[in-house]
This record gives sequence, C-alpha cells and structure tokens, in this order.
Amino acid sequence: MTPTPRGREFFATRTVAEALAGFRPARRTPAETIPLTDALHRIPAAPVTAAHPLPGFARSTVDGYAVRAADTYGVSEGLPGYLDVAGAIRMGAAPDVAVSPGTAVAMPTGGMLPPGADAVVMIEYTAEAMSGTIEVVRPVAPGDGVIRADEDAAPGTAIVPAGRPLRAQDLGMLAAAGVTSVTVHARPVVTVFSTGDEVVPPDTAALMPGQVRDATAVALAALITEAGGDPVPGGIVADDPGLLEAALRLALDGSDLIVVSAGSSVGARDETAAAVGRLSEPGIWCHGLAIKPGKPTLLAECADVPVIGLPGNPRSALVVFRLIGMPLVRLVAGCTQPPAEATVHARLDRDLASATGRLDVVQVRVSGGCASPVFGMSALLSVLTTADGYVIIPEEATGLAAGTEVDVTLYR
Amino acid sequence: MTPTPRGREFFATRTVAEALAGFRPARRTPAETIPLTDALHRIPAAPVTAAHPLPGFARSTVDGYAVRAADTYGVSEGLPGYLDVAGAIRMGAAPDVAVSPGTAVAMPTGGMLPPGADAVVMIEYTAEAMSGTIEVVRPVAPGDGVIRADEDAAPGTAIVPAGRPLRAQDLGMLAAAGVTSVTVHARPVVTVFSTGDEVVPPDTAALMPGQVRDATAVALAALITEAGGDPVPGGIVADDPGLLEAALRLALDGSDLIVVSAGSSVGARDETAAAVGRLSEPGIWCHGLAIKPGKPTLLAECADVPVIGLPGNPRSALVVFRLIGMPLVRLVAGCTQPPAEATVHARLDRDLASATGRLDVVQVRVSGGCASPVFGMSALLSVLTTADGYVIIPEEATGLAAGTEVDVTLYR
Repeated sequence: MTPTPRGREFFATRTVAEALAGFRPARRTPAETIPLTDALHRIPAAPVTAAHPLPGFARSTVDGYAVRAADTYGVSEGLPGYLDVAGAIRMGAAPDVAVSPGTAVAMPTGGMLPPGADAVVMIEYTAEAMSGTIEVVRPVAPGDGVIRADEDAAPGTAIVPAGRPLRAQDLGMLAAAGVTSVTVHARPVVTVFSTGDEVVPPDTAALMPGQVRDATAVALAALITEAGGDPVPGGIVADDPGLLEAALRLALDGSDLIVVSAGSSVGARDETAAAVGRLSEPGIWCHGLAIKPGKPTLLAECADVPVIGLPGNPRSALVVFRLIGMPLVRLVAGCTQPPAEATVHARLDRDLASATGRLDVVQVRVSGGCASPVFGMSALLSVLTTADGYVIIPEEATGLAAGTEVDVTLYR
Repeated sequence: MTPTPRGREFFATRTVAEALAGFRPARRTPAETIPLTDALHRIPAAPVTAAHPLPGFARSTVDGYAVRAADTYGVSEGLPGYLDVAGAIRMGAAPDVAVSPGTAVAMPTGGMLPPGADAVVMIEYTAEAMSGTIEVVRPVAPGDGVIRADEDAAPGTAIVPAGRPLRAQDLGMLAAAGVTSVTVHARPVVTVFSTGDEVVPPDTAALMPGQVRDATAVALAALITEAGGDPVPGGIVADDPGLLEAALRLALDGSDLIVVSAGSSVGARDETAAAVGRLSEPGIWCHGLAIKPGKPTLLAECADVPVIGLPGNPRSALVVFRLIGMPLVRLVAGCTQPPAEATVHARLDRDLASATGRLDVVQVRVSGGCASPVFGMSALLSVLTTADGYVIIPEEATGLAAGTEVDVTLYR
C-alpha cells in the first residue's frame, strides 16, 4: 500500500470546543434501580426527595440540659439560675419525662428534646448545685443547642439532584432518609475496537518483526471505567474495511458508544472512515480535530450510537479520549455535572511553541511549583507515563512563554 | 446517663498535621498478583521494568519514504533529489525490501524501518516524478521520522514505580511491554462499626421516637472505596463497652483498619475510648483532634491494626475521615504517591472566624469564582450535601477575611 498525498486531507475539521459543544448525541442509557451501597459515583436519573422530615425529631446538638429558655433569662456567673433536674433522656428512646417551668432534663448530644423544652444549655454553663438541682450561669434563647425536626431536610426537599454523580455524603443523606435503593442511569456499554495489521494482543509473548502489542485497548478501558462506563473489548480488527464494517454493525446493537483506535497509517484511517461512513446515516460529523496530538479523530453517529475514531498511536488516542471521549461517556450516562479534575498551578520552565487555531496538549512533570514539558514524538507512550499531567495551549495562543502561570490537569 | 463535665476533657489532643505525620502504623497489606485489566488505581508493590526494548524495532512516525539520509543532503524545491522506489513496507510484517544508495521504500506511519534506511521523508516533501521514481525536495538527518527500537523503553527501565496508583497510561505501557499481570498491594480490608443506642439500619422503614438511621456507615464505605480499600460492614453496636470490645476483638483478625463512629454523646465516646484502650497495647495515640468539626476523634493501634474512632455525627465523621482516614487507608495499601485532589481557586464572599490552634473545615458552595460558606450546625448532614467542597482555615489563622483567595477542595 503506497501512501498518497490526498490521504492527508481531512474533511470537516473541527476545534475541540466545537466538538464538545456541537457533537451532542441524543442517546441516554436507561434508568435502573440499584442498592444504595453500590451507588457511589452513579448518576441519579431523577432527583430524590425526602419523604419525611430529617432528622425527624428535635435533637440536642450538645451535652447538657433541656430547659425552657425563659427560665434562663437574666442568669449570669454572678447570679445563676437554679433548676430542678426532672430526669434524663436516653439515646434512641422517647423521653419519659417533660420539662415544666423551673425544671431541666439531662440531655446527651443527639438525644430527643423532651416535651416542654425549647433549648439545651451546654453542660459547661451548668454545675450541680446540690443533688437534683443545677445552677445555670448563661442564658439560652429558644432553639439554642437544638436541631429542628426538619432542619436537615423538610419533606419534599430534593436531597440529591438528577445528573450529578453521587458522592459519599449524598449516600449518607439518602441512608438517613431511609432510601436504600436509587434509580440511576445504567452505565454506558462502550465497545472498544483496535485496528491495525501490526497490532497483536498484549499477551503475545514473542512479537514477530513489525508487530506491536495493543496498548490502547486496556488504557481506554480504564478511562471508560473512570468516566462511569462499562468497557467491552471488541478485539483487534485487521485493516480491512469490510471486516471493520461487519464488526461495527454487530457491535451497534448492545453498545451505547463505540470507540475505534483507527490504525496509524493514513490508509488504515481512511478505511476506518469509510467503514464508519457507510454505517452513519447523517454522515461523519467530524474527521479531523484541531488538536495536537490527535488530529486524525473522527466523530459520527451510527444508528443512534456515537462512534469515536481515535488516532492509531496510543498516546494520541489517550489524549483525545480524555478530552472528547470521557465527556461523551458521561453525556450518554445522563451526567450533567461532571466531577472536577485535579489541577495544580505551576510555572512553565521553558517556552512552548504552538500554532494558532490548534489546541496543543503538552505533557508535563510538576515539581516544586514548576511545570517541565516532557518532550518526545507523539507516538511515544513513555511521554504519557513520565508525565504528572498536562497543560493545554488554547487555539488562540501562538505559544506560552517560560514563566507563564499555567493550570496543570493532573493524572490520577 | 447524666453527662458530667469531666467527660469534656480530652487527653492527648493533637493537631491534624501531627496526626498525619505522627500516627504512621507499620501495617501494610500483602502483595497479590492480578490481571492487568483489573489494575486501574491499584498500587504496585514493586517497580515493573521492561524486559525488552520498546517499541522493539525502529518505526516510522510519518507516512512517507524510508531513505538513507545522505541521499537527501542538499536537495531543495529548486533542486530535488531523485530516488528509485524499491518497494513498500506492509504494517505488521518484516520488510521484504532494503534501502540501498539511491533508492527509497514507501512507508506507512508505524511501519518497521527497512534495512539500510536511517530516516523517513514525509510524503509532503516528495512527489512521484515518474512511475517508480520520486523526487525529494527537503533533506532529512539520520533519525528524522523514526522512533528508535528502545526509544519508548530500554530493557531494565522501570516503566511503573512502586507506590503510585496505576493510571490509564501506565496500564497501556504495561500492555505494550507484554506485562499482563501485575503485583500490587491487596486492598485494605476496612471494618466499619457504628455505635449508638439511637442508631438503626438505613432500611428501617418506620423510626421509633429518638431513633436515627445509620447515615455514616454507607458514606464511610464510599470513602473507603475511593481510597482503594474494601469496606466491610461491622454493623451497629449498642452503647455498651463490653459489646464493643468483643466486636472489635473479633474484627481485629481479618481487618487492616477498623473505623468506629463512636456515638454522639460524651458517654458513648468515653465507652468507645475505654473499649479501644483495653485492646491497645501502646495505649491510645490520640483522643481529640484540634479540628472543627471533628474534635472527638481517636487514633490507636490494636494488635497492629490501626483503629480510628470518629465523632458520632455523620457530618463530623465524614470530614475527619476524609482528612485522616483516607490517608491511612492509602498508607496501609502501600501508596506513597496519593492522587491529587480536585481543587479550584475562589474568593470568599464573607468573613470566617476561627480559633488559633484549631483547623477549621468550612463547607462551601462555589459559583462564578466565589466561595460561599454553607452554615449550619455540625450535626447537619445537609451542610455537606449542599456543599461543592471545603476550605481549610489552618491552625495558625484566626479566620479569613471576605475577599481572601482560597483553595476549595472539591467533592467528587
């Protein structure tokens, strides 16, 4: 196969921003109901509201004495008030005693406020005057030392929103509300194909000359998992448009997203585009992204399933999948509030050149507040494994000068 | 149970920094060997080195022609060089043709450099002069357009370090090197107990007066999972030191870490401390942290197993577990390079008071570059679920003024 210059011409080149804003497949995974204990980072398909008030009863927030606030007005260190101790509250039980004028009830933190009381005096501001009587040296206002019955959530309040991945504290709140199962979007099933006559499975012990092991599929599977998807290995497809088209057609049924790492040569990439193009009703949405590395990226919808064609070399494929693919996995999963990435401020330790109109993703190491670019050809995976994170040079910039403060997105 | 003032006195109070630096249990989980496909975020127990050079053969990084660089010296647009095309390289196969002086071989990106060639001319700088002959209009130096056989990794190079959780690209590099299983620290088994006579399981449909559902255990399990541990529910233990001691003793065997949310009242916390104290040979390391919320935190080692006693209210428990517990899970798992947290710079929209000597963890919402504190008593879980993240007011500060630039650690 002799390469031809026309193979270099991309059609429908887009910027990364255009791709993120413009390629918005309608597909969403269906809702499913799962146990709360499995729901970390899953995405609620609808808001969950509190059925009952929380915590459900007025509770003390301190150790002390439940009182009528009016009985403490005007007291001070010099002029303590005296209250009879009518009893004590036990945790987890209904009060068997009430507070009447001139009396107090001993109260553990979290205990249920007894009838008649409207505040709790901290134990620090009391002393036992004699057996059965305490002195109070600071006044309290109604509500002091108390959580209202509906202060954590009133009935009907949304305790978790739709579209935001569930965090640890959200699970806690749901548990407090007695919600032990939650309706979330199913994890998108993401089928991953590798193409290329040179690509062999990672468990190939001895390589033949010219062969390389498939590094991309396992790394993409990891990124898909991180984005909340279920990766499904589609295997390695030889550089043959008929084979790839057949494999894609089979995968459309049962996939929510398909990812093809498209072979490294122009010919292989053209074959991928041809195969995807034949399956795509509206045609290929974009073939060529204004990004470095990662230009030969393809986006299409085939029968309602978004398809991403990635560059053939693992490093470019992973860079593009982080920027374009992971947001698509989250979109299909109904995620409207993606989690923030870990970032750190650092100062570039050398000049970086770039071309306007193209977004550059520069791998960097970070140490002592300095970001040092890791150089190397775009086909070198070691550039990614050596890096702590990356810096983006936006489309409008012609480069970044040494000393520039940059935001480094950190790998994790 | 009547609360007593002496219950308020903590012994061995430490700062958060002292706890992180000083409470360093020696326990580490054993190594286990797992498939590469399951290894995302797992922690290698030893560095993994490349057994063979990678990519393993000299590869082209461009589509073009493999040449002897010397044959292109001095060529230009005005004075092209002419080379006979001796053949073409196929992907994934050994070259069946060599480059001799005056000849070139057609070359796809990623193909194996044929014998005799030392560079690849990009196709853009060539044209077909006549059938079987190309003209070359730019010179190349030896090595141009080529990745050396060991440029991604030389044999013996560490391709992943010990102690750093494996990232997507690390899995890719291991796959490229033919490493399909990896020796990692076992996930720490973390047993979680809830105590408190008021605490009932989350699936309790109707609460009795004074009861609350266990919100802490499910949220702690989520944080343990995030930190790379395997949470094991220990259940709810009544406020009885004998019962708790027996439960802890049973859990020591088979746990790498034990977490107890220690009941909200002083009495319950004292009972937890007493039970842990009886099991701890060196005694309790710390009882009381200079942190708000979260002061009643306990750290101890019982028979080589670190034990964390957390405050009784879910919000304080989660705040402390993020700051102290998650680093301990990672420590026990052999993690020496914890992943960075997601943070964002924001400007405080109001004054925050704090006491010197105490670290304050303030929940905030973030919008338009502004961090707005979410106020509410420390027992309110809704303060955490409403927040986007938190701001730390360090021990030495007496507060932060409105307008201060702060780093918000974002929940995810």
